[in-house]
Amino acid sequence: MNLVNILKESGVSYSGKDFVVFGFETLKNANKSQICFFNDITFLDQLKSTKAGAVILKEENLKFLPITSSAIVSENPYLDMARLSKYFIKKPFCNSGKIKIHNSAVVDKNAVIGNGSTIEEGAYIMAGVVVGANVRIGKNTLIYPNVVIYDDSIIGANCSIQAGVIIGSDGYGYAHTKAGEHVKIHHTGNVILEDDVEIGANTTIDRAVFGTTCIGKNTKIDNLVQIGHNCKLGESCLMVSQSGLAGSTTLGRNVVMGGQSAAGGHLSIGDYAQLAARSGVTKSIEGKKIYGGFPLMLQKNWLKTQIKMIRYFDTKKNKIEEGE
Amino acid sequence: MNLVNILKESGVSYSGKDFVVFGFETLKNANKSQICFFNDITFLDQLKSTKAGAVILKEENLKFLPITSSAIVSENPYLDMARLSKYFIKKPFCNSGKIKIHNSAVVDKNAVIGNGSTIEEGAYIMAGVVVGANVRIGKNTLIYPNVVIYDDSIIGANCSIQAGVIIGSDGYGYAHTKAGEHVKIHHTGNVILEDDVEIGANTTIDRAVFGTTCIGKNTKIDNLVQIGHNCKLGESCLMVSQSGLAGSTTLGRNVVMGGQSAAGGHLSIGDYAQLAARSGVTKSIEGKKIYGGFPLMLQKNWLKTQIKMIRYFDTKKNKIEEGE
Amino acid sequence: MNLVNILKESGVSYSGKDFVVFGFETLKNANKSQICFFNDITFLDQLKSTKAGAVILKEENLKFLPITSSAIVSENPYLDMARLSKYFIKKPFCNSGKIKIHNSAVVDKNAVIGNGSTIEEGAYIMAGVVVGANVRIGKNTLIYPNVVIYDDSIIGANCSIQAGVIIGSDGYGYAHTKAGEHVKIHHTGNVILEDDVEIGANTTIDRAVFGTTCIGKNTKIDNLVQIGHNCKLGESCLMVSQSGLAGSTTLGRNVVMGGQSAAGGHLSIGDYAQLAARSGVTKSIEGKKIYGGFPLMLQKNWLKTQIKMIRYFDTKKNKIEEGE
Repeated sequence: MNLVNILKESGVSYSGKDFVVFGFETLKNANKSQICFFNDITFLDQLKSTKAGAVILKEENLKFLPITSSAIVSENPYLDMARLSKYFIKKPFCNSGKIKIHNSAVVDKNAVIGNGSTIEEGAYIMAGVVVGANVRIGKNTLIYPNVVIYDDSIIGANCSIQAGVIIGSDGYGYAHTKAGEHVKIHHTGNVILEDDVEIGANTTIDRAVFGTTCIGKNTKIDNLVQIGHNCKLGESCLMVSQSGLAGSTTLGRNVVMGGQSAAGGHLSIGDYAQLAARSGVTKSIEGKKIYGGFPLMLQKNWLKTQIKMIRYFDTKKNKIEEGE
Repeated sequence: MNLVNILKESGVSYSGKDFVVFGFETLKNANKSQICFFNDITFLDQLKSTKAGAVILKEENLKFLPITSSAIVSENPYLDMARLSKYFIKKPFCNSGKIKIHNSAVVDKNAVIGNGSTIEEGAYIMAGVVVGANVRIGKNTLIYPNVVIYDDSIIGANCSIQAGVIIGSDGYGYAHTKAGEHVKIHHTGNVILEDDVEIGANTTIDRAVFGTTCIGKNTKIDNLVQIGHNCKLGESCLMVSQSGLAGSTTLGRNVVMGGQSAAGGHLSIGDYAQLAARSGVTKSIEGKKIYGGFPLMLQKNWLKTQIKMIRYFDTKKNKIEEGE
Repeated sequence: MNLVNILKESGVSYSGKDFVVFGFETLKNANKSQICFFNDITFLDQLKSTKAGAVILKEENLKFLPITSSAIVSENPYLDMARLSKYFIKKPFCNSGKIKIHNSAVVDKNAVIGNGSTIEEGAYIMAGVVVGANVRIGKNTLIYPNVVIYDDSIIGANCSIQAGVIIGSDGYGYAHTKAGEHVKIHHTGNVILEDDVEIGANTTIDRAVFGTTCIGKNTKIDNLVQIGHNCKLGESCLMVSQSGLAGSTTLGRNVVMGGQSAAGGHLSIGDYAQLAARSGVTKSIEGKKIYGGFPLMLQKNWLKTQIKMIRYFDTKKNKIEEGE
């Protein structure tokens, strides 16, 4: 679709060059057929060197835009990105079409495989599984019943995905108008699971806004875990049941997150960091340490804190104090 | 079924009038073909003006019953309501019968649509979806793979329901005998999603005991969220991943609930209230404020509290103090 | 498969007797065709009296091994157990073969029943359900759409399993190498639900490593709850939405766990104990008490603690104190 037509239909004024747009990308990765938005001054260097065909940005930032990119001037670039994002989605889960199943792979007759997908050697897709379009399932990977894998996902070799897991669902991303309406950001990115990844029952992993949500090699995720859009998990991480990651958070390698622990969005957790059960991460933290509690502290302090809290708030003791 | 027969079969003595009962309702909404229970003195006004055919109530409250309603006298009205509730259920998910699919709607051949259901213009029901009986799916709504929508649900227009979502499951409601047995309250209510609602992967929304669990227009719910029976969410609310609402809680409009936050049952949260991640609501709260923590406080206090807690419980500092 | 061949293929040296191995078991329950591992001195009595054909153990513990059992000497028995566990798995969800459906039971034509399974009198298996091999579904039990029940599960009579529930998924069990790799422990145990059990939507119950994960008669579990491998829940327990149990934890009878509460692994919770919403159990606790908070305390103390915390950390008050 042509940029000029999209912007005309959306009521956005534009006097830059016209071209066929293939979608949104990050400033860093975009090519001349893609568009970006610029909203956050910390990415200024990326704006200055972007190769995007056009960038949605505020008038005051026009001066930083490379001459090779056209400007789509906006009072609220994030909101306008959300509004335009709907032009780049395609119909999900088209399951008629050409598929490629290795003759040693087994696809249950009650599973559905989408158009253009590939099932590699020795993979086993069980009953009730729904695989979207353009998905690749690696060698010897097991997909248990009723798993759903959205379009464009890539699943490595020797993975095991327990029943009810959802991979590639839309992330929770909305821009908000002044009137309090929520404008959906259509997610056009995907999910990649590297080799030897295991995912527990009913866990959900959201696709990226654009780009990729990535689960590193040998990472093991338990049941009912939430992984937000654009998260990157390193090699050999462990995430225990009911833990969660908000969007765009990065784990290093061998990070351990205990049961019901969570991390906010856009954070970074260092290699070999361990988070005790129920701990809550609200700032980026360095690796090779054991953390606990909410507010988060070193786990050894949290253990002492627990003792102090029980002692300090002990009813009998305080009653005496109050009675003095 | 006739009331006299039901009560006879259940071993409940009754000398009131007989009529064909169509089920339970609230005191406020019941008509003369429905029955109610009265257990909580805060609803006394509703008892006095009820139009119900009969009411289960304690002997001491007989005097408040309108002359138009018959009395079913009980030592434990809630328990007897639970025991009788089984007479009003019908077989769920009858999926043979007459269905109505608009010719512009798409229903995947691997989806199942129940008896008497309607799929409106432009809706898209993907593979593995199971829709119960008497369901309505509104215009242009997308239902992703393996979603389950129970009988009698009403889904508005332009909704998007991600994979694995369960809408209309039985609420968690039991009456308890003195011996510690749990008697199931069969849920005969339904779920309504108004227009422009979006629901994230593997989220669960329970049907009402009787009446409706309602999600207001433009409300957006993330993955793995729990909405209990009879909750009412206003317009344009946001509920982030792994948050939860116990039964019969009401959110105003534009309420925001952060990740892993929760509210207890029978509470009311005012318009534009915001709950930080992990906050826990145990009392009704007013709108237009930002809350955090558990126990719940204003978020600005919770942020200061976190600093104080870390400082107060700081190990080194306290060691020195203890050593003095 | 013969033990000598398995150990040869795995590169484990062995000079004991050869026999056909039928899998792993606990020291207590193993027979002469099964093998065990010994890693934890608290089970020494069980080692001394085991009837297992062979036991993986450290050299220093050889002296405790009964003469009837062969020794598989290992520096890391737990890791070697994990490595050998893969020899005892069979292909999951083989759904062709002989099944037995009582003529009063209803199996939806869109449900899949595995080889060797039995559906008893009056049971109703709805659309999209996938039942594995060698499963038994008891009398009058309702299985709602898109539930997955793994191989070897046993579901009692009069149970109700809401949509999207996963029963018998692999537990989250890994042994770890010094290099930080996670070696999967293949779970060969099963899940048993006794009679009158109800399970809420999208809840997950993991199969046992070996032996059984058991949910006691009349226990009622809400939506999105996690039950780890080898847990034992007594009769008439209640687990409210989003609560969780780590592996091998035992609940007595009539235990109540509130919303978002959790217990760590290998703990014991006594009969009639009640856990308030959000409480976190990290040590075994006795029954007939009401607990709350994290760190866990008696609920009455936790309620007082909440008041104290709000008061103590109250911003205005502390500002004055700091200003003095």
